[in-house]
Amino acid sequence: MHSIHKIKSSIIAISTILAISFSHHGTIHAQTSSDKVTWQLAQTWGDEHLLGYPTTRLVELVDSLSGGNFKIELINKKVHKNTRGIFDFVKDGKYQMGHSASNFWAKKDQDTLFFSAVPFGMVTPELYSWFYEGGGIELMNKVYGKHGLMSFPGGNSGHQMIGWFNKEIKSLEDLKGLKMRLPGLAGEVMKGLGVDIINPPVSELKEALASGKLDAVEFVGPAIDLNLGLAEVSKFYYVGWHSPSSEMHFMVNPAAFKKLSKKNQQILTNAMRLAAYDAFTKIVNENGLKMQSLLKDYPNIVLRAFPQDVMRALNKENAKLINAMAEKSTDGLTKEIITSMKKHLDRARVWTRFSDQAYLNNAGAL
Amino acid sequence: MHSIHKIKSSIIAISTILAISFSHHGTIHAQTSSDKVTWQLAQTWGDEHLLGYPTTRLVELVDSLSGGNFKIELINKKVHKNTRGIFDFVKDGKYQMGHSASNFWAKKDQDTLFFSAVPFGMVTPELYSWFYEGGGIELMNKVYGKHGLMSFPGGNSGHQMIGWFNKEIKSLEDLKGLKMRLPGLAGEVMKGLGVDIINPPVSELKEALASGKLDAVEFVGPAIDLNLGLAEVSKFYYVGWHSPSSEMHFMVNPAAFKKLSKKNQQILTNAMRLAAYDAFTKIVNENGLKMQSLLKDYPNIVLRAFPQDVMRALNKENAKLINAMAEKSTDGLTKEIITSMKKHLDRARVWTRFSDQAYLNNAGAL
Repeated sequence: MHSIHKIKSSIIAISTILAISFSHHGTIHAQTSSDKVTWQLAQTWGDEHLLGYPTTRLVELVDSLSGGNFKIELINKKVHKNTRGIFDFVKDGKYQMGHSASNFWAKKDQDTLFFSAVPFGMVTPELYSWFYEGGGIELMNKVYGKHGLMSFPGGNSGHQMIGWFNKEIKSLEDLKGLKMRLPGLAGEVMKGLGVDIINPPVSELKEALASGKLDAVEFVGPAIDLNLGLAEVSKFYYVGWHSPSSEMHFMVNPAAFKKLSKKNQQILTNAMRLAAYDAFTKIVNENGLKMQSLLKDYPNIVLRAFPQDVMRALNKENAKLINAMAEKSTDGLTKEIITSMKKHLDRARVWTRFSDQAYLNNAGAL
Repeated sequence: MHSIHKIKSSIIAISTILAISFSHHGTIHAQTSSDKVTWQLAQTWGDEHLLGYPTTRLVELVDSLSGGNFKIELINKKVHKNTRGIFDFVKDGKYQMGHSASNFWAKKDQDTLFFSAVPFGMVTPELYSWFYEGGGIELMNKVYGKHGLMSFPGGNSGHQMIGWFNKEIKSLEDLKGLKMRLPGLAGEVMKGLGVDIINPPVSELKEALASGKLDAVEFVGPAIDLNLGLAEVSKFYYVGWHSPSSEMHFMVNPAAFKKLSKKNQQILTNAMRLAAYDAFTKIVNENGLKMQSLLKDYPNIVLRAFPQDVMRALNKENAKLINAMAEKSTDGLTKEIITSMKKHLDRARVWTRFSDQAYLNNAGAL
């Protein structure tokens, strides 16, 4: 016993000296050396943008959970110069990870679309329960795995407004020839009902709406839209149906992930998961604040929902397009995703209807 | 260079041997020794109970985020024998932490009530944005700090149903003399409208409803209620207003927390935060599944909401009771919490109304 105690004491003394003398080399202790790592993350939105919040939150979480061993550097779009290049950057290993929106890659693979926002789809709590309890994540991995990428939920901007209108939509007739900014699948849906879809650069949206070059502009929701000044040049703000929850995503290079220690893999995975939830919590607050500003500062803006016959026609057109996507899929994966999504929506919505919806409709607030 | 290299090599060799030989003593490396710790958590609900899920998730997260250094042992109620003793267990340092519901401590301090569930209050995304973005956590710390405790959100069971009824509620008259199980503030609200509140042990609820000893039983929601067999002895299932989001909480002993390494403090805090979010995600799914079972297996159960005049009277009675609590508070903290809560509810609700509520009311599902 005595000799073991002596050996242990001297060992502790040696370790302590080593830690002080050589810790900046990061190679003394097996566990420490494999945990010490710096990654780079290519951003789509910057640190200062609300949609960039999941990335700054991730940096903070990974740093504090690892005791400073695991660092993530954010690479701003001003540096990498290609917000639509995140997919390839991460795939090629130029950066270990990226943050973006899954619908950006719909032209590479139509199945990526379903992990972003789907018209007439789930609200955010329903969506997260699909991801984590209803098989959504497994399907997302199947899709991104085909492209040599890992993908994780990256924060939800919640419900999106269908946007700023200068013409009132009273019937299906009013959609014919309406000049509207609306990218993606929702744009295709509206096009099917006669809308003229025009998507100029974001910097030109306000001017286009002011000049009549556009009659309507969809963007995100109050938390983001008010900064673009769209309220100053619009008459109506219409509630949405095209993006009831809008998930961003983190992409990770699998070879880089494999090189991480098991502990750092856990830290990264759970920090992404927490950053995503926190981003939704933050945007709920921001949308509330900005909706209050809108009502106070722009009392002339009229809030409206599309009439029921327009909603039914949009839903029908959307179903047609989604079914066409399923038909186009050669490996059956699109159909598998749609089936899983619909099954989960049925399950979660029956509860949403008898809980939050019934409550919001029947009970006045405190 | 050569000699440094040699020293470093032998050091690495020694460290490796040490790590293998003595790692179970946990004292070799300064950083490791301070990170290696085992805590005990006193549960209110067991591992097998859905409401116990945040605790099993926490154990898993803390273990994996710390690379196995930080362990939490769950102490089941069968061992500590007092589900209503968690507050004192943690305060006295018998266990480093506990998991429970804040409304259990309303007799010790009425302000604890507001961090659990408030009638006519916020739905879950609104509540989390109050906690983390609207000052809710700071107020919770003020309340629990007075009692020498730290408290953190511990998972939300979402919206709760007002329960299982054998008498239909068509008007305020139907509440008079209704024998109902409904603990807490909501019970006081119903009592104010003439309801006879009787709270037998949980194990007797089904029998009491079957025999007519009770006319109505509030419990949680479909995910929990169906296990009690209440559907077998009821005619109506009424949607709620008394608990639109029901937060559990983790309590931590501050002296124990202070002794943790900074890294472990971060791991614990963020693991609790993630476990809480994940619990809500899980229960959304479970409530959906069980609501589907209810509709399928008990087609005779009628789903109903209270009529508007009953809802208005309940809201008024609730406001009266909450204002009385504010008056009773000697240090003004109750008023501070209610003011903060109402301010946040106004902010978040204006967005909920124009987003999820409008969408759920106007748009058919996919």
